[in-house]
Amino acid sequence: MKKGSTLFFEKRPVFIGWAAVGGKKEGEGPLGGQMDEIFEDTTMQTECWEKAETLYQKKCCEKLFSKTGSKAADVDYMFAGDLQAQCTASAYHARGLDIQYLGQYGACSTMAQSLGLAAAFCAAGFADKAMAVSSSHFCAAERQFRTPLDYGGQRTPTAQWTVTGAGACLLSRAGKGPKVQAVTFGRVKDYGVKDVNNMGAAMAPAAADTLLRYFKDSGTSPADFDAVYTGDLGAVGSKLLAELLADEGVKLENHLDCGLMIYDRETQPEVIAGGSGAGCSAAVLAADVLPKLSKGKLHRVLFMSTGALMSQVTVLQQESIPTIAHVAELTDE
Amino acid sequence: MKKGSTLFFEKRPVFIGWAAVGGKKEGEGPLGGQMDEIFEDTTMQTECWEKAETLYQKKCCEKLFSKTGSKAADVDYMFAGDLQAQCTASAYHARGLDIQYLGQYGACSTMAQSLGLAAAFCAAGFADKAMAVSSSHFCAAERQFRTPLDYGGQRTPTAQWTVTGAGACLLSRAGKGPKVQAVTFGRVKDYGVKDVNNMGAAMAPAAADTLLRYFKDSGTSPADFDAVYTGDLGAVGSKLLAELLADEGVKLENHLDCGLMIYDRETQPEVIAGGSGAGCSAAVLAADVLPKLSKGKLHRVLFMSTGALMSQVTVLQQESIPTIAHVAELTDE
Repeated sequence: MKKGSTLFFEKRPVFIGWAAVGGKKEGEGPLGGQMDEIFEDTTMQTECWEKAETLYQKKCCEKLFSKTGSKAADVDYMFAGDLQAQCTASAYHARGLDIQYLGQYGACSTMAQSLGLAAAFCAAGFADKAMAVSSSHFCAAERQFRTPLDYGGQRTPTAQWTVTGAGACLLSRAGKGPKVQAVTFGRVKDYGVKDVNNMGAAMAPAAADTLLRYFKDSGTSPADFDAVYTGDLGAVGSKLLAELLADEGVKLENHLDCGLMIYDRETQPEVIAGGSGAGCSAAVLAADVLPKLSKGKLHRVLFMSTGALMSQVTVLQQESIPTIAHVAELTDE
Repeated sequence: MKKGSTLFFEKRPVFIGWAAVGGKKEGEGPLGGQMDEIFEDTTMQTECWEKAETLYQKKCCEKLFSKTGSKAADVDYMFAGDLQAQCTASAYHARGLDIQYLGQYGACSTMAQSLGLAAAFCAAGFADKAMAVSSSHFCAAERQFRTPLDYGGQRTPTAQWTVTGAGACLLSRAGKGPKVQAVTFGRVKDYGVKDVNNMGAAMAPAAADTLLRYFKDSGTSPADFDAVYTGDLGAVGSKLLAELLADEGVKLENHLDCGLMIYDRETQPEVIAGGSGAGCSAAVLAADVLPKLSKGKLHRVLFMSTGALMSQVTVLQQESIPTIAHVAELTDE
């Protein structure tokens, strides 16, 4: 049911499985022990970072299949995306599966976007089972968006660290597990930030816009949730989001940012303002949020991913950074 | 209703409007007179091809709004995509609109993918009105996927010409106009083609896979349709598609390829094997297919877009080209 700009599902899609994989640094972070597998060699024994990312995504979905006793033929649709130009990490993964594939591009918001679409397809009866998948790779992202690693460029105080890893979940029309109650999709916001080393600041207005619409449509506030997860605003963006919501009279309680959860900024200071990347919120969802909902440690949460939609080309063309954020309400039963 | 891998809509979404715009070469082609506007200066008075493409998309949607008496606030969702890395033509267009935006990446299959999702959202009651939009720009695509124009590289006998232009359509749950009867989304196929100057050959197997699934699920054959439109297989891919279908006992009748419709290969021999690009099938849909359905000149057609999912990076990494094709059945009433 559509109310305002939010979709409330009458037949709530069920998470029947999930999986997360990460690289060495993610393995050393606070959630490393909760991921399904850590691949410390981030080349994945391939000759290119881009191919390695495809393998992270592939390994993640293999875990998802084995954990749920499913196979690709059981899945109607895969909604997936990543940060690579032309979303190739996902497309090259999809060519090995005989699943109907809908490539999504929402930058680091891709997981919530894919999850929202997969949920919508299950809720409408268009799919019996649908997958949402997203990934990123630090090295592939750095050379694409910033500078090749070999330059050894200094990182600025607002910079975030792209997660090497992937997350995937399998939704079903029926079954037992956490559920998707509602989804609000994002609108593109651009407040004129041009610094690709300050994604958090660029994305905070989009996060605020979507959250405010969701709270209005649902008649809720942050206090109604055990946690409000945002994708990867990091330290800088999280502070800005709280300020933007406060300006609208909304006190941001129970807030957790996936970018601040996946690394320990004390012992991993090189991540500076926290994690980011399309794999960040995807991996945290599958490694932490869904297991906790499944075990009753959480009952009702908001899961939001945020994305910055620029490219290396638009940055060179001195454009500012358009951003977007999608949110889903997840419940334990 | 889901049958096999096809969605048959009980509440059929209605095309309440459409618009197409093109550049100089598209204006000189057979469909030039049917487009809503031709912008002969393909720079659109901007300093970059990429920004020009955003403007083509923007002008196209402005036409769509003016033709239908709508405004952005009337539209619940925009499903849109393009060929630029990180889909920036669409994202930078979307930032000027206050519409919920879901960025799609299906390369040249993006129009059918976006149309299929917009139709699904309307059919399910998730949207009252939803837009599908796609664009491409010859100069932006050439320098991204092949070589910068300044190199003056020779084109091979199988090469296609990326359309400069955009197409958009507005779907509604109610109203008068052509309708979306059914949609089959694609699976990724890769038969090992590595030549970025032979997209048609790479995409034909994906087109055959989706069409065969649709024919099976619907119990139809090509002869049941006034026309079977494919996106941009061009001369080479169209021949291969007919052969692949013949091998499966399906005679491809009534076939028209958007890439062969948009240019006149006699008077525009530089297009070689025909048009391509995410704007190609989008512009032909809006300039030719929908007007003919609307006027009763066509009654029942298949509209398919085909896409090649490689990037410049994967080509340099000597990867083969994964491809995909999505199809929609459109009717005049």
